[in-house]
Amino acid sequence: MLKPESYACGQWIAPGADAQTIIGPVSAQPIAQAGGAALDFGAMLDWARAHGGPALRAMTFHQRAKMLKALAGYLDARKEELYAINPLTGATRRDGWVDIDGGIGTMFLFAAKGRREMPDGHVYIDGEVEQLGRKGGFLGQHIAVPLQGAAVHINAFNFPVWGMLEKLAPALLAGVPCIVKPATQTCYLTEACFRMIIESGLLPDGAVQLVIGRTGDLLDRLGAQDAVAFTGSADTALLLRGNQNLLRHSVRFTSEQDSLNAAILGPDADAGGPEFDLFVTEAVTEITTKAGQKCTAMRRLIVPQARLDDVAQALSARLAEVTVGDPADAAMRMGALASHAARDDVLDRLARLKAEARVLCGDTAPDLPGAFLNPTLLTCDDPDAASAVHEIEAFGPVATLLPCRDTAHAAQLANASGGSLVASLFTKDAGVARDVTLASAAHHGRLYIMNRTAAPEATGHGSPLPHMIHGGPGRAGGGEELGGIRGVLHYMQRTAIQGSPDMLSAITETWIKGSAEVTGPDHPFQRTFREIAIGETIHTPARTVTLEDIEHFARFTGDTFYAHMDDEAARANPFFPGRVAHGYLLLSFAAGLFVQPDPGPVLANTGLNALSFQKPVSPGDSIAVRLTCKRKTARTDSYGEVAWNATLTNQEGAQVAEYELLTMVAYDRA
Amino acid sequence: MLKPESYACGQWIAPGADAQTIIGPVSAQPIAQAGGAALDFGAMLDWARAHGGPALRAMTFHQRAKMLKALAGYLDARKEELYAINPLTGATRRDGWVDIDGGIGTMFLFAAKGRREMPDGHVYIDGEVEQLGRKGGFLGQHIAVPLQGAAVHINAFNFPVWGMLEKLAPALLAGVPCIVKPATQTCYLTEACFRMIIESGLLPDGAVQLVIGRTGDLLDRLGAQDAVAFTGSADTALLLRGNQNLLRHSVRFTSEQDSLNAAILGPDADAGGPEFDLFVTEAVTEITTKAGQKCTAMRRLIVPQARLDDVAQALSARLAEVTVGDPADAAMRMGALASHAARDDVLDRLARLKAEARVLCGDTAPDLPGAFLNPTLLTCDDPDAASAVHEIEAFGPVATLLPCRDTAHAAQLANASGGSLVASLFTKDAGVARDVTLASAAHHGRLYIMNRTAAPEATGHGSPLPHMIHGGPGRAGGGEELGGIRGVLHYMQRTAIQGSPDMLSAITETWIKGSAEVTGPDHPFQRTFREIAIGETIHTPARTVTLEDIEHFARFTGDTFYAHMDDEAARANPFFPGRVAHGYLLLSFAAGLFVQPDPGPVLANTGLNALSFQKPVSPGDSIAVRLTCKRKTARTDSYGEVAWNATLTNQEGAQVAEYELLTMVAYDRA
Repeated sequence: MLKPESYACGQWIAPGADAQTIIGPVSAQPIAQAGGAALDFGAMLDWARAHGGPALRAMTFHQRAKMLKALAGYLDARKEELYAINPLTGATRRDGWVDIDGGIGTMFLFAAKGRREMPDGHVYIDGEVEQLGRKGGFLGQHIAVPLQGAAVHINAFNFPVWGMLEKLAPALLAGVPCIVKPATQTCYLTEACFRMIIESGLLPDGAVQLVIGRTGDLLDRLGAQDAVAFTGSADTALLLRGNQNLLRHSVRFTSEQDSLNAAILGPDADAGGPEFDLFVTEAVTEITTKAGQKCTAMRRLIVPQARLDDVAQALSARLAEVTVGDPADAAMRMGALASHAARDDVLDRLARLKAEARVLCGDTAPDLPGAFLNPTLLTCDDPDAASAVHEIEAFGPVATLLPCRDTAHAAQLANASGGSLVASLFTKDAGVARDVTLASAAHHGRLYIMNRTAAPEATGHGSPLPHMIHGGPGRAGGGEELGGIRGVLHYMQRTAIQGSPDMLSAITETWIKGSAEVTGPDHPFQRTFREIAIGETIHTPARTVTLEDIEHFARFTGDTFYAHMDDEAARANPFFPGRVAHGYLLLSFAAGLFVQPDPGPVLANTGLNALSFQKPVSPGDSIAVRLTCKRKTARTDSYGEVAWNATLTNQEGAQVAEYELLTMVAYDRA
Repeated sequence: MLKPESYACGQWIAPGADAQTIIGPVSAQPIAQAGGAALDFGAMLDWARAHGGPALRAMTFHQRAKMLKALAGYLDARKEELYAINPLTGATRRDGWVDIDGGIGTMFLFAAKGRREMPDGHVYIDGEVEQLGRKGGFLGQHIAVPLQGAAVHINAFNFPVWGMLEKLAPALLAGVPCIVKPATQTCYLTEACFRMIIESGLLPDGAVQLVIGRTGDLLDRLGAQDAVAFTGSADTALLLRGNQNLLRHSVRFTSEQDSLNAAILGPDADAGGPEFDLFVTEAVTEITTKAGQKCTAMRRLIVPQARLDDVAQALSARLAEVTVGDPADAAMRMGALASHAARDDVLDRLARLKAEARVLCGDTAPDLPGAFLNPTLLTCDDPDAASAVHEIEAFGPVATLLPCRDTAHAAQLANASGGSLVASLFTKDAGVARDVTLASAAHHGRLYIMNRTAAPEATGHGSPLPHMIHGGPGRAGGGEELGGIRGVLHYMQRTAIQGSPDMLSAITETWIKGSAEVTGPDHPFQRTFREIAIGETIHTPARTVTLEDIEHFARFTGDTFYAHMDDEAARANPFFPGRVAHGYLLLSFAAGLFVQPDPGPVLANTGLNALSFQKPVSPGDSIAVRLTCKRKTARTDSYGEVAWNATLTNQEGAQVAEYELLTMVAYDRA
């Protein structure tokens, strides 16, 4: 008998006297006792806010990203322990891969994105500097900083590992401590993974806590610096989001709910063609993976009327081949539902669907004690008149075929469920893809467009990826998770900062135009990554650009564009007063002005950003460069990226070009 | 007697039999009758969804931006009609400037940003393409599209014009029709402006409607494609956001509530110094503008203990000079509160504040029939023990001084109000600015950092700017408005699109790597903006880069960096196999390969983005360029920007550099 424990204020807490007995969905026998311990939620929140939060916020984004990478690696090394428990939940090894490897992979991805896309500091910069006055003495910049409270994660029963890790990764990367509350039915698997996290010793005290059982007054104790992320049913979500304390304090509440996701077969997909086959194959996967217990699973299969019979036949035939039984048996393609109660609920909803749709296959169960159900396909003759098929979700291996007249009708049916997590479209016709997107994207959090080109690398209709947002409007909960750094920002406050350039530079650790220039003791290319200061600047001498330079450059490079070669033609151009220097000649001369030839810590010019040629340079004009260190970002163990603002001015001091120059610079001298 | 009318389904609807009589806050006499008409909210929503939405969505972002620009210009030309009504609300001309010119300016800004920062199409691209598979056949891209419902705007009494326009501008730019519900007390001024909008004839039918009076069952009829944006009191917000229909359908609800905003005087600000004087001056402005009826007004003035007496004296003296009376009289600095009821409410809350704070000046009223109140300053000796000063907002010309020990204590007091719209800090010390930001930014939607450098161009603690977000956590409502395009996205659905490059290209009207290349009939530089197709491509011949080229370029430009000149030293560099070509030499040769010398529609190379040098080019290697039209954006009446993807490959077909080249191209041939 498993006895999963809560983890509160740094202590493991065993199940209480009135713990709930969990019946195994495969064995139909008791497998665990969980919950019932009296947890002090006030103390847990204090612990998170007083210990976890400050410790996490003291770290930089990169430090937290490295911590996540180490943690994902630690879990990866021990994952077979989780796979050993996995069949108890009714899941096959293949189902477990989505949950266990999927969860660990999500954490790896956030670790990578944290290092690549966030600064090695404490303030995330959101968007460009806004010049709020005429002269540049008063600027605006949006930033994001971590919330100073705790994140409460309320997870669903279907993905005990992924559900925890996909919420933990962005929250911890943001710098916010978490209290995890798994669904009780499968909490022992979550607990096993959570225990590994604690045993890893990689997280600071108070960064994570675990609630097995009821949440008591936890939500009533949250405030404006806390956040709730919920995954589960619409009914539970409605109950929680209506909590008066959450409403009163505008506590962030993200909800990701089961929805009646659609898959559309395009009008171009002929029976037996690649898109048709992909549709059938993905539909089988969606109906059977996790026994259909996925919030993203296809529930409504929208098919052109003329293809309906072909799809019904092909799909029924494939579903009939699906083996259903003990998930620990590798011969079984599909395991059990998560509990007998879950199966009762599916059967109840199936009965309501049958009022509007006919059963084509399934609606039967193998003769076993567990909570099994064979894959079930229905068809609805009049989906425009139907309501249950768009509103009642049987959260199991169940889907309904809906015939459509044309693409517009298909989009309309897809939208009829009042908001979903994902809709898919199987087409090779880009016009159809665009039409469906314009008609439908507002109703779905994700659109998955599948065809022969995408298929070899495609990740599946039902797979939320950490790169892409997961959530959707309306019935899907109106929330959003993941989506790379977007998901991290859910745990941060976006704040508009207004002030002088120096103040904004100090806050963002980025040189902003107008803030102070610093002069170093040497040429900046002789200074190491550690030595170079934000704002460190050199002003080069000026160099005159002669007509001979321009002609020489034109001959040398082959760039004989008339604006450089023909005075009369150049004058006819709205941008030029006559012959002008090539932009690339200016860039090249600029490099000649600021480059220091000798070996030093600056290793290479790796690129540049946002180059803008702002004023023509005529023969006889001169240019000089101001080069200022703008931003430093650690990259590897031995060097980091230094971004420089380069500004070219002419003999009158007018700016003629500006760009951001990227260099790789060694941390230390060789 | 004014009789402001509702505007529903294209019809003006006069006040009903049980209209409310509005008493003027200056005259204390009836000035208007409003509301009481039986509006059919279901029909209004249908009208918006069936007419306004489709008409707006048929337009591109640029077309809607131009519409807003024309509308702002129209209102600007007629604004004196609004200034004529303005004093009836209790507001001075100066107060009216914030409301009327501020509102029109906000609309102008959104028009400008819409053209500059959004595409001339129907799909907004959010972030970068994500490569989801190894080979690039399956990609991800986030997009945003307009919601397909209606936006309901519920506005506060204090800014009858700005309040309407600051919500209309982003919603209309997004492509979403609006139903505007102003606060009844000042609805006649909103109606006067709204009437101009209708009279302008610039908006499509159904794009805007107006509700004077109660909202009846409007909120009960909203769905997942609708949105509510509320500005007003926390109590009303709590009532509305708890609406079961809104919760059930996850209807977006943005709330911007009055909050107890703080202003902190930095420890470096000596009495009589510039920052001290700025603090006193801004405090006077914040207490008196709109008679203190601003959701962003300073309510809590946090001052180092040692400066408390100096501030109290300076501020009391300045507040005593403020003239209070008929706002139509130019000699009056401050007008009336919006109503006698509003004044009663302020006096009631003031009484509660006085339990914790002493009155330093004010707490009196001029002997006039109107709803006047003299500016009132309190001081609280023990702000750590106090609660009312952090929680009770007297929404009038009232502020309280709070002494602090140090910067950390100041931040702690600023945060004690449980979330605010804005906090300000008066300091010239960048370290103080950074410390306060890290300690406080999570609690405030905006931080306004003021000092002698920023002051000449500063826009004021209390002024939300359309560029910057307006909103804040917790007590401030947990919402966000404005912030440039961020505010437009509140009316759009972000959707993750997954598919092959061709599908994503068609949806985003942007060439994405891996999608089809198109060959035009001519060199692309001879094709007009209208003619050039997305995906139009040329492949240039290859050019060999010789050692002589590199040495020649080094001498010519002066860029004699050792990686180009010294084989042994170059080999010691981790990035180079030996001497390599200059990056700018490659760029220059690339231009020589793809430029067409003759005059044609391509007028100029204006810049480039995201240049990345990916592989070194050694002497003897060759480079060839593929140039593909990536994106087209209309800019002026005669030309637009065409962005090209430029990819340089070597003799082995390996990519050595990539960038986005920006050109200006004439719409038509000269």
